[in-house]
Formats: sequence, structure tokens, C-alpha cells
Amino acid sequence: MKEKAMVLFSGGIDSTTCLALAIERHGKEQVIPLSITYGQKHEKEIEAAAKILTYYGLNGKQLDLTPVFAESSCSLLSHSQQEIPKESYASQLENRPDGLVSTYVPFRNGLFLASAASMALSMGCSCIYYGAHQDDAAGSAYPDCSRAFFDSMNLAVTLGSGKTLRLEAPFINSSKADVVKEGLRLRVPYELTWSCYEGGQFPCGRCGTCIDRQNAFEANHVKDPALL
Amino acid sequence: MKEKAMVLFSGGIDSTTCLALAIERHGKEQVIPLSITYGQKHEKEIEAAAKILTYYGLNGKQLDLTPVFAESSCSLLSHSQQEIPKESYASQLENRPDGLVSTYVPFRNGLFLASAASMALSMGCSCIYYGAHQDDAAGSAYPDCSRAFFDSMNLAVTLGSGKTLRLEAPFINSSKADVVKEGLRLRVPYELTWSCYEGGQFPCGRCGTCIDRQNAFEANHVKDPALL
Repeated sequence: MKEKAMVLFSGGIDSTTCLALAIERHGKEQVIPLSITYGQKHEKEIEAAAKILTYYGLNGKQLDLTPVFAESSCSLLSHSQQEIPKESYASQLENRPDGLVSTYVPFRNGLFLASAASMALSMGCSCIYYGAHQDDAAGSAYPDCSRAFFDSMNLAVTLGSGKTLRLEAPFINSSKADVVKEGLRLRVPYELTWSCYEGGQFPCGRCGTCIDRQNAFEANHVKDPALL
Repeated sequence: MKEKAMVLFSGGIDSTTCLALAIERHGKEQVIPLSITYGQKHEKEIEAAAKILTYYGLNGKQLDLTPVFAESSCSLLSHSQQEIPKESYASQLENRPDGLVSTYVPFRNGLFLASAASMALSMGCSCIYYGAHQDDAAGSAYPDCSRAFFDSMNLAVTLGSGKTLRLEAPFINSSKADVVKEGLRLRVPYELTWSCYEGGQFPCGRCGTCIDRQNAFEANHVKDPALL
């Protein structure tokens, strides 16, 4: 009997590839995708996540953590007055003395992993998959995507659960291009995923995550199927 | 200007002492108590917390994380069919092969600290106080109260926040008797606190936390003012 695994799943490229990998390793019946809403500006990610779960024939769990971010000024949140920057993370960071971009949601990944830990323990899972990769941590734009953060959070989850649960971040040493390469091997339905921070009919092509996505497909000499 | 501090505050002995210490160190104006509900069986803790905040003249923040524990079988939760054990933690542990007591709420403290981290960062706090002490971790009844868990979680919060936030657990090397000793020095209004796992008019005197509380006051040669 394979272990039960929970997968943090947003409907973007990284977590969908992570989901496909968890399905390959654990078998579909042993995988529980968890999608967390937190007051994002748009619903496109949620719609994408639903289509991908249908594609894989899975029922996911949903959790709404919007109240936690009621006081946050992060530009990704629906109550924020800040505009989402239209430039690469590198150029955003040049103008940020605190080393954090305005799309940093305060300790989001720590909160997501802790919530997933509580739910995973309640549902008999012994591991949680999480699609962080090294490009997200680059230049510390998102400190909660770094390898060092992951290691400490994994230790906290392991110790805090009496060693009954661990975290798995299979791409923590990979670039986003490597994630897409692995996803192409796993035949991930990338045409269903959504990355853009804006909620338009089509991806804007100009925000930090759109730029990263295009580069990751180009590095694999593949056209992004979401743009076909 | 002193740092702003968030305090995880439940209305029990440990977190009320922690609150009093944070007020002494940071000044009342710089302290934000955070009370988290998670589907507990009774409201006595919440009522106690409200009375204590009135005593100190503070407005607290509230957060409801009940949905996270929807699938948990922990005996403290209102939807659980399990009875809350009427014995000390030590004798409970003798009959638990997994080393966890039925009142262990899965990864609760990790979730509370992660939620507090997201809120503290949004509100300009640079530290979070948390009243864990070594007796709670004894025999690993509550692995998420141990020193090792705290150290890893503190590192995760520090790294995941880009080094803008840290955790403070002033009692992590203290016994519960030491906590009460410190609280007596700080003139904590212990008559307003609530510890019992049951929601009766008076503390049951027989559950794990009632037994611990009585012992802590006895060690200080003081009668528990909640029983006067």
C-alpha cells in the first residue's frame, strides 16, 4: 500500500507538475490535492485548478484563508489598492529596499504548508508535496520559496507532528525550465494551467510570472500550449 | 520606539502570562493579542480571553481556523465523538502507541504560529510571543510544544519573512510552575483565566490541563485564584 500524499495545488505550472509527479509516485487514489484561496484579485487560478482536477478525475479539498490576510497590502489581494507590477522580478527588486516584491504575500507558503500539515494529519497522509523551485527564490523576491526556508519548515512539520508527516519539494533544486521539462515528460495538460497575475481573458504576457512562464517553455523549445 | 509584538493569546495561564510579559517589555500600545478559534468544544476560553483583554484595556484580533480541522478526530473539537480523557498526560501516553494524546490537535501550534506570522507581517510587528513551556512537551504528548519544534519554526518564520520577523517563546525552557511564578511577579489576573478542557461552570479538576494547573500553583505555595 502506497503512502497517502497531500499536494498543494493552485492550478499553476509548478503545482500542476507537482500533482502529476505525486500521481505517478503514489497512484491517483492516494493523492489529495488541496487548493487554498486567500483573497486573490481574480478567479482564473481557481477555474484552472477545477479543470485540471476534472482532467485527472480527482476531487480536491478547498480551504479559504482570506481572513488571515485582511490587513495585508500585498498587490495580489483583491482589497489592495496597489497595482500589480508590469516588469520582471529582477527590476522590481532594484527599487525595493526591503528586498521583497509587492506580490509577496506575507509568509504565504509557510501558512499554506502549516494548514496542509493540519489537514494532512487529519486525513492520514504522511507527506505533503509543494512545487517551490529555485527560480522563485532567486534574489530573495520570495523568501518563502528558498531551500533554507523549505528545510526549516520541513523540520518544523516533522518535529511538530511527532515524526508522522514530512514535506516533499521535488523541484526545490530545479529551475522553472526544469519543472516544465519534467512536466512535459509527465504529459501535464499545461493548456489548462493559469499563471498570469491579472485576471484577463488571456495572459497579460508582461507580469513577473508571465515572463517566467514564457522563458521556461522557450528553454524547452516548446510553445506554451496556453497561448496556442 | 519599541517594537510591535503580536501575542498568541488563548485566555489560559501560559498565554496570559506571556501577554503580561510582552506588555512589560514592549508597552501596552505596542502589543497585539491574537486569539484563534478552531472548533473547540466550549466557549469558556473565549469568554476568559475577552475578560482578560478588558482587564488590560486591550483590543485583540480574532481568527477562526475551524475549517482547517474539519476532518480531525481530536477529542477537543466540537464535532468529535471522542471523550476528553480524565487522567494525567503521563497515564494517557502509556496507552498510545503513536505517542500522541487524543487532545493533540494536529500541528495546531505550527498552524497558529504560521497564521500569526502572516498577520504580524501585515500589521508591522517584528516578533510573535508564544507561551509554550517544557512541561507541555514532556513525554512528547504535544510534540508541537517542544524546544526543537520551536527552534525549527522560528527559523522557518525568520527565513520565510526575509528576516523581518522572529518568534519569542520566553518560557520554552521553563516548567509550568516557573510560568506561574513569573506570572505572580507580573500580577497576572489568574482568577480570570480558564484552563479546563471541559466547559462546565467550574473547572473539572480531573483533565490533564486541570491537573497541571493545580500542580503549578501548589509548587508556588499559592491557591489557584480561579478556585477561590
